[in-house]
Amino acid sequence: MNEHKAWRGNYFEDFSVGQLLRHATPRTITTGDVALYLGLYGSRFAVQCSEPFASAIGYPRAPVDDLLVFHTIFGKTVPDISLNAIANLGYAECRFLRPVYPGDTLSAASEVIGVRENTNRVSGIVYVRTAGRNQHGVLVLEYVRWVMVKKRDPLAPAPAPVVPKLADRVEPAQLASAVPRLNLQGYDFQSAGATHRWGDYAAGEKIDHLDGITLEAAEQQIAARLYQNTAKVHFNEQEQQRLVYGGVIVSLARALSFNGLANAFHITAINGGRHVAPCYAGDTIYASSEVLEKAEIPGRSDIGALRVRLSATKNRGCGDHPLRTAKGGYAEGVVLDLDLWLALPR
Amino acid sequence: MNEHKAWRGNYFEDFSVGQLLRHATPRTITTGDVALYLGLYGSRFAVQCSEPFASAIGYPRAPVDDLLVFHTIFGKTVPDISLNAIANLGYAECRFLRPVYPGDTLSAASEVIGVRENTNRVSGIVYVRTAGRNQHGVLVLEYVRWVMVKKRDPLAPAPAPVVPKLADRVEPAQLASAVPRLNLQGYDFQSAGATHRWGDYAAGEKIDHLDGITLEAAEQQIAARLYQNTAKVHFNEQEQQRLVYGGVIVSLARALSFNGLANAFHITAINGGRHVAPCYAGDTIYASSEVLEKAEIPGRSDIGALRVRLSATKNRGCGDHPLRTAKGGYAEGVVLDLDLWLALPR
Amino acid sequence: MNEHKAWRGNYFEDFSVGQLLRHATPRTITTGDVALYLGLYGSRFAVQCSEPFASAIGYPRAPVDDLLVFHTIFGKTVPDISLNAIANLGYAECRFLRPVYPGDTLSAASEVIGVRENTNRVSGIVYVRTAGRNQHGVLVLEYVRWVMVKKRDPLAPAPAPVVPKLADRVEPAQLASAVPRLNLQGYDFQSAGATHRWGDYAAGEKIDHLDGITLEAAEQQIAARLYQNTAKVHFNEQEQQRLVYGGVIVSLARALSFNGLANAFHITAINGGRHVAPCYAGDTIYASSEVLEKAEIPGRSDIGALRVRLSATKNRGCGDHPLRTAKGGYAEGVVLDLDLWLALPR
Repeated sequence: MNEHKAWRGNYFEDFSVGQLLRHATPRTITTGDVALYLGLYGSRFAVQCSEPFASAIGYPRAPVDDLLVFHTIFGKTVPDISLNAIANLGYAECRFLRPVYPGDTLSAASEVIGVRENTNRVSGIVYVRTAGRNQHGVLVLEYVRWVMVKKRDPLAPAPAPVVPKLADRVEPAQLASAVPRLNLQGYDFQSAGATHRWGDYAAGEKIDHLDGITLEAAEQQIAARLYQNTAKVHFNEQEQQRLVYGGVIVSLARALSFNGLANAFHITAINGGRHVAPCYAGDTIYASSEVLEKAEIPGRSDIGALRVRLSATKNRGCGDHPLRTAKGGYAEGVVLDLDLWLALPR
Repeated sequence: MNEHKAWRGNYFEDFSVGQLLRHATPRTITTGDVALYLGLYGSRFAVQCSEPFASAIGYPRAPVDDLLVFHTIFGKTVPDISLNAIANLGYAECRFLRPVYPGDTLSAASEVIGVRENTNRVSGIVYVRTAGRNQHGVLVLEYVRWVMVKKRDPLAPAPAPVVPKLADRVEPAQLASAVPRLNLQGYDFQSAGATHRWGDYAAGEKIDHLDGITLEAAEQQIAARLYQNTAKVHFNEQEQQRLVYGGVIVSLARALSFNGLANAFHITAINGGRHVAPCYAGDTIYASSEVLEKAEIPGRSDIGALRVRLSATKNRGCGDHPLRTAKGGYAEGVVLDLDLWLALPR
Repeated sequence: MNEHKAWRGNYFEDFSVGQLLRHATPRTITTGDVALYLGLYGSRFAVQCSEPFASAIGYPRAPVDDLLVFHTIFGKTVPDISLNAIANLGYAECRFLRPVYPGDTLSAASEVIGVRENTNRVSGIVYVRTAGRNQHGVLVLEYVRWVMVKKRDPLAPAPAPVVPKLADRVEPAQLASAVPRLNLQGYDFQSAGATHRWGDYAAGEKIDHLDGITLEAAEQQIAARLYQNTAKVHFNEQEQQRLVYGGVIVSLARALSFNGLANAFHITAINGGRHVAPCYAGDTIYASSEVLEKAEIPGRSDIGALRVRLSATKNRGCGDHPLRTAKGGYAEGVVLDLDLWLALPR
């Protein structure tokens, strides 16, 4: 077989700091994608579900769920960044910068901002800053992620290590550019599902989101394909037990978090995130939130920001167990640890 | 955990006659929802599937499947009405009042019209009349359902019992307000899949719809989430074998009934309905219809109404077995007993 | 049960040469169908995924995936042609004649062009030429298929055998009427995912598309229903292990072939095709391509045609094994053998 036309992905030694990667395939997001996303996760945030709700508070129309945008952009980066990844290690400095509406077309590009070979010489860590843009070239999403990538040749020389300095958290002044100035008179809290505003939450508050959802193989495959995520670990049961795309867990946790955070209608930033343990079909996912911090957003009296640790566990609820061990590590069953800035009406 | 923000649902003693519940989340129905609904059930009624077919007979455009409307409204009521339900007991006086089109936004509200504590003191029956409205506030759907709901506290005092008087059937004069006056010249029976009109059916006629569909867990979860139905029995295999949302069986039976009722393009009313037995992933569903009654609709020469008992069975066909036992109960395998008014061209 | 209204399908003796069958249900294809199709296969061809990409090269808007069109038309023919089929034997002379866009409505009609009873007297082969048209009556797809169909009555007399003469391949002059004259200045090869143009491929070249996808029962059922394909073999596990609709394998192979044929954005013809072996849930599907022939398309300097044998295997990759045995038959694991004309930019 002449295989040079079929792409096997980049290996660690193919990446260098400053390298720019423009990713295929631009993708027009439609109400069809929105419906399938809803069928996969069951999210209930009113702003994204209802055109009249969105327009009553000042959106030109109902925006696309933030995580559908994230997963779509992420999916485009997979063929270039993580086809030979061993592990997706983390996220930082993720900001949702402009709303995305059905009909918008998303494309993605990444810059390599760090590389560091592992001491075992068979792999290394690659840091990329990925930008998602709409059809007008306007930045709608930006994030840093780092992944452990195999080397093609263990003997290939190690590059000079560059590890980017990443912010612990996005500054409040940088939040919420994707939210138009809201008309809170038009915000119907009963329709939205709860009366709790930004002011009703306190740092230190913990919320068990109660429900659990058992994952099916078909669901995670349909989800990963909807995002055109081509990582083979999600699809080929002959090679290994199929790993659920981590973004599926993020979306499930987010959808479950509606029960307790119904007015946290927008993820404005992801300060950091880790997929703590892998998930497989048959696992039952639960979620809980801990309010880490409250922040006013400079210049915004309509909305405030809540910094929330959104955690997911598998095969045990979040309410009855600690998420951390006495030694500070993750407790058995924890699968996701996300540090988010959420926007809520004040 | 501070759980007061995560909603655990109402218990029997939280309901009182006259109480009004406005349900979250308004939801804009799109062609995306229509496509996913089709993928889940495979319905083939031409009016809902084809824009030119619908407009040739007098619809401004192809309406959304009646049951997608029903399940969407029903789903909204779950967090307030049936999160602590033991059983969904029945439906009555359900009318589809106006067509719903892609782009319309549905919201739901319910009035408690009856309560009756069970003699065991641990639960009671709650009767609600639910109204679904579009973005203009126009009533598109109305129905009564009653559910058995747990008490939070068995010692809580019993309310005075109120059991609403419900009609056995919707009156023919109340039917078909959702159907514009049809131009039957434009109705292409060959495209629609059969030549049988209203006049070709007779009371007492039975139709075995022949085909069977085996249910998958992913399908029923995607369906329930599409309707934003949050009842945990559909999702959490750790707590119990996941129960298929009864509406999935209704939609499957309706889609199967195309084979024999191809021109019964619209459910105009549900006179009554019972989920006779639970269904689980792996069950194979069959359907049959019995014509109970034929009625002219006052003022309508274009369409007539057929009152049909639509039954579903699991793991055995409907053709070769009785649906009732000698004693009058349901035979083994019967899972659904629906009493419908269907509209057909005359 | 009075079963005459429920259709059991045509049997071999119901077909005669020259017979015309107009199939139910006309179907409006929407962006919802496009999204669900994407979720089921994960196709990444830029022309179909991105409105700006499509319009930059001269399409009025992004066309619907060719195979979604094919499966939709095919599905309509099932109730009339193949409800009592024993096997779907082959395809020929399939041409995609005009682009289909979301909002278009597809309908199908077939002409019986051949019949030949089998020597066993219990079945026969039926040849049909099927035409798919849009809402303007314009032909968008045409193909011949032949199926082995049961006889209702083995004693029914055999018709005079008629076996149509079918072309081995569609002539290059007949290709690409569905592709507008392209503005290649606007074709962004990096966005499209690869730099390989028509001129970069050579007859005899083989491409292993590398990835494998494990099929789930829910996926194949959702797919078959999306196409309103009612063949019971896909749905009823009580009657037999559910057979995956062959079109699902075609679409998976096509989506996998992106990795190596990223700019082969359009299937302009199917010269022939065979479902070599059945597939079931749990099978893992791989694909490979062999370039059979290169052809200029008369009058077109923008695009060229590549004749490609697209093969799919199950439960073993395509790269390491021959697809043919020494004796010329299919090797173990081969499930699909398709002979396609693909259009690529020059």
